[in-house]
Amino acid sequence: MPLSFWEHIVSLAKADILSHINNDQCDAYLLSESSLFVWDHRVVMLTCGLSTLIDSVSALIDKVTEDKLTFISYQRKNEYLAHLQASTFIDDIDTLRLRVPGTAFRVGHLDNHHHFLFSSDKSCQIMSQDKTCELLMYHISGPVADYLCTEQQTVAEIYKLLLLDELFADFEYDAHVFTPLGFSINGIKDNFYYTLHITPQEQSSYVSLETNVDLEQHQSDIASTLLAILKPRSWDTIGFNTEIAAAIEPKNICVGHCSYPIKQGYNVIFSHYQQTCAELLSPEFL
Amino acid sequence: MPLSFWEHIVSLAKADILSHINNDQCDAYLLSESSLFVWDHRVVMLTCGLSTLIDSVSALIDKVTEDKLTFISYQRKNEYLAHLQASTFIDDIDTLRLRVPGTAFRVGHLDNHHHFLFSSDKSCQIMSQDKTCELLMYHISGPVADYLCTEQQTVAEIYKLLLLDELFADFEYDAHVFTPLGFSINGIKDNFYYTLHITPQEQSSYVSLETNVDLEQHQSDIASTLLAILKPRSWDTIGFNTEIAAAIEPKNICVGHCSYPIKQGYNVIFSHYQQTCAELLSPEFL
Repeated sequence: MPLSFWEHIVSLAKADILSHINNDQCDAYLLSESSLFVWDHRVVMLTCGLSTLIDSVSALIDKVTEDKLTFISYQRKNEYLAHLQASTFIDDIDTLRLRVPGTAFRVGHLDNHHHFLFSSDKSCQIMSQDKTCELLMYHISGPVADYLCTEQQTVAEIYKLLLLDELFADFEYDAHVFTPLGFSINGIKDNFYYTLHITPQEQSSYVSLETNVDLEQHQSDIASTLLAILKPRSWDTIGFNTEIAAAIEPKNICVGHCSYPIKQGYNVIFSHYQQTCAELLSPEFL
Repeated sequence: MPLSFWEHIVSLAKADILSHINNDQCDAYLLSESSLFVWDHRVVMLTCGLSTLIDSVSALIDKVTEDKLTFISYQRKNEYLAHLQASTFIDDIDTLRLRVPGTAFRVGHLDNHHHFLFSSDKSCQIMSQDKTCELLMYHISGPVADYLCTEQQTVAEIYKLLLLDELFADFEYDAHVFTPLGFSINGIKDNFYYTLHITPQEQSSYVSLETNVDLEQHQSDIASTLLAILKPRSWDTIGFNTEIAAAIEPKNICVGHCSYPIKQGYNVIFSHYQQTCAELLSPEFL
């Protein structure tokens, strides 16, 4: 599909395409609200903020037509200010189910980190080597977190501080620093991708990494390295057919854990971690 | 004020008075949505569910008139399904500030347990012996939690299982078991009160205790006893001029802590605890 098609799909989520890179296998679009990756037989789209991802997904299903779809996974995480969102996850799956029969569940308690997941019921067989990792980090701290709150931040310096050259060696990348703060990067190599998004604001910082690089097999311990650099107060890992090993630093406990097999062949593994040392909280005035 | 007045105030929050008890100093009303206590110079009202506490508070301020009010504290906690609430805390304090100037803050992160508090700015001096304790317990477990999920539960048995006779000796009490599940109790002795509410539903259980009995000075360790009986996955303590000691059982870490002085003389102490052992989470289908 041409760029204009993806511009339209992205606009339905209330986002824009800022830039894009591509190789023989994958087109990677950097969005005003996260990222979009397109392969011949797969699309991955992530959005944030007040975007309406469900509208993009609905339009995409309508375009592709349901009979040509093999599998759909639609996810939402616990939100900071859920009441500001245009819809709830329940609203979204009501919309999705008009087009595609599917199973939906929540893992994790409503008063703590949790994850909503919908997957289509259609029979198919996912290959066990089809893996996706997500690392969601909350309330980062330390010198790199401090740097990410400065207005002078640059793509080159963030790339260096996060050791991305080492963690994702030989990946072509496309990155953007937002005003006043914030950073997004897409990386691709062959059919592999990674995407990392940083919202560094002091009272509600959040950093997410998603990749189809198998973190279990990779030469660098990507998750542990990023956790040690960004020192989040808490974090979640979500693996599809892969489990992200528990990190040593920052010192932490696993608060909750779930391994759930989806019948088409994805084992979904959710873990929620929390630093063990007590945080001295400050009141935020309203 | 007569019963009819309080019936009206309570109805504004979309609640009803189920029953009441009183002594020389205090009238205690058990509500369909929690509790109301009235002394000569103080009112404490707690509501839950989809109630609209702010409407009761507004009407009460209008009736009493702002110049006769010494101090107002208005609180909301993190909610399970915030988007279903008729208002946010920010909406509520916008309403309150039309009547009473005040300071508002949030303590605790938005993705974890947190507490919103508004207090009036008017000059006054709270006595240091004026103490209130709140113990908020999430995801209870064990045999008492199991009993609380049975439809055969009785007031007498719950009273016995929670050792309330021992913890709050010589308190007159008024209790109610809800259909299909749920329990509320108000207790009074002289000018002291306690109120305990149980929502035992398996995926979202919640138990709250509030009292002006000084837990630091009391002969029984009320908080530790209830925590050992109800075995919540996580809990918060909020003390006004008192700090609730950390419990030994269930084994836990303090995730976050804040001590914040309000200038009229309340030191507000918030602590959030989490069990250390990982919880095996089950997907909840939607």
